[in-house]
Amino acid sequence: LQALILAGGSGTRFWPLSRQRNPKQLLALEGNQSLLRATLERLYPLVEPRSVWVCTTEALAEQVRRELPEVPPQQVLLEPEARNTAPAISWSVVSMPEEARRGVVAVLPADHRVGDSAAFRDTLERAARVVERGDQVMTLGVLPRRAETGYGYLELEPGEGQDGVRRVRRFVEKPSAENARRFVASGNYLWNAGIFVFRGSTLLEILRRLQPELARRLEEIAAAPHRLRELYARLPVDSIDYAVMEKLEDIATLPLDCDWSDLGSWEALDEVLPKDDGGNTGRGDRLAVEARGNLLFADAGTIAVLGIEDLVVVRTGDAVLVCPKSRSQEIKKLVSELAAKHREDLL
Amino acid sequence: LQALILAGGSGTRFWPLSRQRNPKQLLALEGNQSLLRATLERLYPLVEPRSVWVCTTEALAEQVRRELPEVPPQQVLLEPEARNTAPAISWSVVSMPEEARRGVVAVLPADHRVGDSAAFRDTLERAARVVERGDQVMTLGVLPRRAETGYGYLELEPGEGQDGVRRVRRFVEKPSAENARRFVASGNYLWNAGIFVFRGSTLLEILRRLQPELARRLEEIAAAPHRLRELYARLPVDSIDYAVMEKLEDIATLPLDCDWSDLGSWEALDEVLPKDDGGNTGRGDRLAVEARGNLLFADAGTIAVLGIEDLVVVRTGDAVLVCPKSRSQEIKKLVSELAAKHREDLL
Repeated sequence: LQALILAGGSGTRFWPLSRQRNPKQLLALEGNQSLLRATLERLYPLVEPRSVWVCTTEALAEQVRRELPEVPPQQVLLEPEARNTAPAISWSVVSMPEEARRGVVAVLPADHRVGDSAAFRDTLERAARVVERGDQVMTLGVLPRRAETGYGYLELEPGEGQDGVRRVRRFVEKPSAENARRFVASGNYLWNAGIFVFRGSTLLEILRRLQPELARRLEEIAAAPHRLRELYARLPVDSIDYAVMEKLEDIATLPLDCDWSDLGSWEALDEVLPKDDGGNTGRGDRLAVEARGNLLFADAGTIAVLGIEDLVVVRTGDAVLVCPKSRSQEIKKLVSELAAKHREDLL
Repeated sequence: LQALILAGGSGTRFWPLSRQRNPKQLLALEGNQSLLRATLERLYPLVEPRSVWVCTTEALAEQVRRELPEVPPQQVLLEPEARNTAPAISWSVVSMPEEARRGVVAVLPADHRVGDSAAFRDTLERAARVVERGDQVMTLGVLPRRAETGYGYLELEPGEGQDGVRRVRRFVEKPSAENARRFVASGNYLWNAGIFVFRGSTLLEILRRLQPELARRLEEIAAAPHRLRELYARLPVDSIDYAVMEKLEDIATLPLDCDWSDLGSWEALDEVLPKDDGGNTGRGDRLAVEARGNLLFADAGTIAVLGIEDLVVVRTGDAVLVCPKSRSQEIKKLVSELAAKHREDLL
């Protein structure tokens, strides 16, 4: 089993902690380990370091290699630029040696949270066996624990195959609150976690059929690797979901129940952190008096709060963020303002 | 006219900006000038530097002298310890040479705000003339602009003397909201601003009558200045209001109308700072998106807020404070907690 970890993200959702040079996957949001490092370690012992591939950008190369010293350096693949997941995954597969590519590849985002690593490995191993046997494209869908409107869903066909395998009827975009409630109540939906398992060679065949332009351009790159920068810039920007997965007639899934979160915002992080006696969560040096339900994240220095509720307060060495927890999805507005003001020092 | 500036305060109300070693009077809260420096400069040209006396503590000596280089160093008087305003003022007067002591002395807190310096000087000058003529104890009471419950009040006798002089009937502690409204509506009350004008020799006579123990102990100090530390520690801790002013049968006042504030809290500071387009006030590098009515004070680094209202956010090099503006009077709770945790680094 080969693991392909996607670590090229440059999200702004954890600003001011996340920066262009220090994006979410490199942050230790929960414990002392970066999300990237945790993504690798939870694969052990199912996947060995020599079977791990990491796709990231040139800008992050040094930090990614430092986080994952046991991954062979030539298997840390550097995109000249980020062009979404369809180019990242398919180029990574093309870059693997023939033998690896013919084997089973698990695609894993580098910036998610998994509470129960053993359950995660178990489901991943079962999915890999299904792929080995049937040359199937699989996705791991997360058993929904609440009517979340921030995730995409997988609608399932009725009935269960061998080993609990389910067929995916369709991919559903982030739903309304009402639809989310209906989905979860029905028991026929899973959260789309962006985890895919397939033979590399199978993905390339599918690409030739569904995305012939992308497939042709990847062949160009394989034939002229010295022209990577020039040719990569011509790959169509697209997500693997949209370019491939949603178009497949035959995609299977195994429900994943492993205390998963995409950690998509400060509020999502707050949900998985333990609450202190005062009902606040946080990290670092902090003091809360008559304050409840806040996330207080001190990366540097001290946070002291009095009488506030349901706020996010984040302190880094150079900045502080304060916003209501319920609006932490909107932090990109602040980041956009900073970009408009050319505050590269804070981006 | 001699000015005696009281600069020994060690308040915690502007934490985390104010610290034991950097108390409120040394802070530049509004402009680029410390409140202490502004207190001196607003006296010019009515009072000359050689007629200025400053009472502070040994711990603050160096900083106070640096802020007020034109004040003769021997006129920066250093209390061995803070024992409230009755010892501070009376010991300072005793420490003046005979000639200065016989003249008119204006006692001025070092940590207040005056918007209209010319009006302030004008009223102070008129009060000094009244004292020169009649050997009177005067206080300057501020014309109240709202039903403030955070200040003490002076109740006036009906009728006006020569030059607009009013007689004080009594000192009133911080009133209830209802009483404050009644006081302001009546027109018979002024805010007690802690500004007093008298002949030094008159104060010492009054002390012998009203506070004989304090007077006797001050004579001991005058007779044995090398025992200052030991003897000062025996002075009764008391405010000049309580020890002297409230007990006087004959105290006069002139109403002061100079855009005054005691800057007693972050909220009080917020009231005097100009509002930006978004309805926020502040200092330093800050960014507010869809946020209104906040005080954002960045002494170091950047403050970025989204969607919050009526909060105080203060960022220093080592700490950040977040609390509702309406609760900024309660910051001492945080400071007490820090003291209980022996966080001297933050006090």
